[in-house]
Amino acid sequence: MHTLYGDIISGNCYKIYLLLNLLDQPHQWINVDIMQGEASNNEFRKMNPNAKIPILKLSNGEILCESNAILNFLADGSEFLPQDNFLRSKVLEWQFFEQYSHEPFIAVARFINKYQGLPVERKSEYESKQPGGHKALSIMEKQLSQTPYLVGKVYTIADISLYAYTHVAEEGGFSLSHYPAITDWMKRIESHPKHIPMQLKPEHLTPAHKV
Amino acid sequence: MHTLYGDIISGNCYKIYLLLNLLDQPHQWINVDIMQGEASNNEFRKMNPNAKIPILKLSNGEILCESNAILNFLADGSEFLPQDNFLRSKVLEWQFFEQYSHEPFIAVARFINKYQGLPVERKSEYESKQPGGHKALSIMEKQLSQTPYLVGKVYTIADISLYAYTHVAEEGGFSLSHYPAITDWMKRIESHPKHIPMQLKPEHLTPAHKV
Repeated sequence: MHTLYGDIISGNCYKIYLLLNLLDQPHQWINVDIMQGEASNNEFRKMNPNAKIPILKLSNGEILCESNAILNFLADGSEFLPQDNFLRSKVLEWQFFEQYSHEPFIAVARFINKYQGLPVERKSEYESKQPGGHKALSIMEKQLSQTPYLVGKVYTIADISLYAYTHVAEEGGFSLSHYPAITDWMKRIESHPKHIPMQLKPEHLTPAHKV
Repeated sequence: MHTLYGDIISGNCYKIYLLLNLLDQPHQWINVDIMQGEASNNEFRKMNPNAKIPILKLSNGEILCESNAILNFLADGSEFLPQDNFLRSKVLEWQFFEQYSHEPFIAVARFINKYQGLPVERKSEYESKQPGGHKALSIMEKQLSQTPYLVGKVYTIADISLYAYTHVAEEGGFSLSHYPAITDWMKRIESHPKHIPMQLKPEHLTPAHKV
């Protein structure tokens, strides 16, 4: 069984437990409190010198970091990752877009606002994140007004990657009311029978999902 | 034949033409001058609403963006991308690390210094990039003191992704003299018989590589 080290407030960690739930794949969840700096201690740095979560530890002891790399590993061979090389690369295109052009704006603004309470010293940084976040949302809106999911007709891990922080974008000050295609897409994702919401407390996860 | 839209000063574009050269894959190169804002014009935005290069246009007209997604597409089935799912995911781990924890520090500092001439109004931003850049280099150094390439014994597209901006890191103010394993790794990469240096002018590319 895989072991997942993550924090339930992190969208990057949510990506993984959402996929594991969709795949019905039992795993151990070890909670890491990023607000207490637990991802930076020495034991943790042995697993990931970059001191970031999530981390997936395989039953053979191998370690895999970076949320989107973990998604690709877990989804391989499933309906959530196409076999075709071009489509698979389009999934990656959206995931690299997420890490460079979406997460640094939307997730960071959310963190400053929701978890740090928008302190005065980070207010200008928070405001500077708004145009970039809306640019990312506009690019998603354009695609989702043409296709039901980001890479065509099928729900893939590209959607999981972008859903994680988009569906809580309002917590970073990004109103989604002007993005009807994104709003419909979120409903589509949430209507999946095995969908699981973000920020369930560890004690709410089913036993197979806990340590 | 594929068409590649890129700027020769961009490390993200260099990744692609380095791989195409290693693979002996003929392609058309269309030069896009990012300093003149050519990636932002309307015609270009039709191909990539995110207004970024490189862009790969396939002979069937399909478009693929994001340098690391393009590398995965082109390397599929070659010696530069393992077939094994775990190793392939380790390649992705390094590529996502590159886009989130390396490029935003090292490539951005290099751009401010080398191409903008370190203007006064960006000096504090330039300086703020130094600790993050050195953190990324330290993480690479740790891995490369254990294995000859980032994902073990074999030269993969993970190395291409990280080599692109690392080998010009000094242009962003990052001295590599304290990173002996990185220095050895760069020599290993440069000794490949089909290696091609960055920033050849378009007229220096072989005819098959030109428009």
